Amino acid sequence: MEITLDSPLDMHLHLRDGDMLKLTAPLSADFAGAVIMPNLVPPITTPDAMVAYSRRIREAMGEDVAFSRYMTLFFTPQTEATLQSICDTPEFFAFKLYPAGITTNSEGGISHMKEADSTLRMMEEMGIPLLVHGESHGFVMDREAEFLAVYRDLATRYPKLRLCMEHITTAAALQLLDEFENLCATVTLQHLLITLDDVAGGALNPHLFCKPIAKRPGDRDALLQAALEAHPRLMFGSDSAPHPLHKKECCGCAAGVFTAPLALPKLAELFAAHGSLGNLQNFVSGNARKLYGLTPVSRPITLTDTPTHVPASYRSFGQQVVPMYAGESIGWSVKKD
Amino acid sequence: MEITLDSPLDMHLHLRDGDMLKLTAPLSADFAGAVIMPNLVPPITTPDAMVAYSRRIREAMGEDVAFSRYMTLFFTPQTEATLQSICDTPEFFAFKLYPAGITTNSEGGISHMKEADSTLRMMEEMGIPLLVHGESHGFVMDREAEFLAVYRDLATRYPKLRLCMEHITTAAALQLLDEFENLCATVTLQHLLITLDDVAGGALNPHLFCKPIAKRPGDRDALLQAALEAHPRLMFGSDSAPHPLHKKECCGCAAGVFTAPLALPKLAELFAAHGSLGNLQNFVSGNARKLYGLTPVSRPITLTDTPTHVPASYRSFGQQVVPMYAGESIGWSVKKD
Repeated sequence: MEITLDSPLDMHLHLRDGDMLKLTAPLSADFAGAVIMPNLVPPITTPDAMVAYSRRIREAMGEDVAFSRYMTLFFTPQTEATLQSICDTPEFFAFKLYPAGITTNSEGGISHMKEADSTLRMMEEMGIPLLVHGESHGFVMDREAEFLAVYRDLATRYPKLRLCMEHITTAAALQLLDEFENLCATVTLQHLLITLDDVAGGALNPHLFCKPIAKRPGDRDALLQAALEAHPRLMFGSDSAPHPLHKKECCGCAAGVFTAPLALPKLAELFAAHGSLGNLQNFVSGNARKLYGLTPVSRPITLTDTPTHVPASYRSFGQQVVPMYAGESIGWSVKKD
Repeated sequence: MEITLDSPLDMHLHLRDGDMLKLTAPLSADFAGAVIMPNLVPPITTPDAMVAYSRRIREAMGEDVAFSRYMTLFFTPQTEATLQSICDTPEFFAFKLYPAGITTNSEGGISHMKEADSTLRMMEEMGIPLLVHGESHGFVMDREAEFLAVYRDLATRYPKLRLCMEHITTAAALQLLDEFENLCATVTLQHLLITLDDVAGGALNPHLFCKPIAKRPGDRDALLQAALEAHPRLMFGSDSAPHPLHKKECCGCAAGVFTAPLALPKLAELFAAHGSLGNLQNFVSGNARKLYGLTPVSRPITLTDTPTHVPASYRSFGQQVVPMYAGESIGWSVKKD
């Protein structure tokens, strides 16, 4: 069995910078394009920094690789003039809003949503998408559910704003998605597959620890169902988030699961196992193109049901990253010409 | 400020064996006695093995240290004859029942509670306590709550059995405790202090990962309140559970928090901070003595509000164990003569 996908997109990707970027960029090129997260140190907040980062990504991926870089800026309040100049930057796709301190390198994020109001009003008018890491500072299992009130408020007050709930992890978020037509959402590979049991139910597994944390079986099941049905406002966004090995396997490990190199084979295996392979194109590309009006580079990729062996880790440029399914086999693989 | 406790008891202690026992035993001797868990490899299932283990503990702790060893056997079904010979062994205190595979070295535990019925009936008649690791094999946050039906069933069917819910972690378990006068419970230091947020809310913290896992803030608050009030059927049981450093800070870390050397100073600090120091004696000794009719060795210990520095790790006999509050200070300390 095989399937050819037309320009698959990863709508939420962390590539990092420097030597880590050199490692991750080529490993992320199964996709024809991606929305690139801006939470570097320091975060990407200006068009100049964004354009320079886009160039570094292109260089790291290889000049000859056709890959659409949908660049984001770390949300900070803007004037009309700065917003206009941002919009005039061709690489720019969207703002990513982080509540302050909520995840990796988000210390400069927003503390009170009212700080964002005038900028959001302009973004609504100018058609700029707002991508949100939607978690409160509450109890870890409740953070997304508690943030849904903020999404509800934003979706109500800015009916024309293209508002995306990034990496949703709960059945409650899916319900909200169905309430507001101006909401869309991304979901990761791991949140279709795992629960808190996989992180902390047996032995503690740092390589499956991410933010938002994996939730209950009922949440995972609801997300998987919506993905398999290619819910028209749900998009694949891996949130593939590499950390150096020593920041994962030590005390106080960093949050993030590295899935970029295996996401498409695993998604194909998962959709095929549920008889939903016909919906994969929309989940990994069609929905995003329609919702955002994207026209990525044209690049087909064929996936086939011959196994992939996932290495124990990826090493290069002095970096070492452990992927999801390290040392295991996945039933599908990318077909090389 | 200071307080002198009369023979404090740790009603749930893991000392391990071999070199690890040599390290942990002296570090556990702030207490005048402890209930010693039997989940070694292989588990302690016979009076001979139990007596030999008791001797090894005595040797590791020091022949001159007055310490009451309340030894337990790993629950397996017994005949009347074997049960009688167990009862005749002076060191024997209770059976510890583990659902099969539920925690460290519990693979030989009970799969179906009916396997235990005839033994429990005899234990009830003979006055042998049953200590239970009460978790289902369900979703990690629900395991204790799901097991409460088993406690309810046992408490109903064996009204005279002294049944102890070990290391409870939920407000729901406290409610059950209040429903059945024949139930008692132990609670650890960490479950009075932490929630899942401390394990996986920020960075992942393997040194606070234990089974049952720390639960929600409301659970922690209810447990702390019951402890501060010295609920008459709630006893301190540290569940201090040392693991070698390499089994904690690597991928797939083992479950257990090592608290034995700092439990009493931290409890004194905690009870003093809440104006409940007067209840500490019952929580760490009086309740257990009354519930089980224990007469431990007489050994007073004085705690004083001068700080203790907790080392980053304890090392000896080629072993290295990281305690709770490693590298931090605790406001109280054991007063040395």
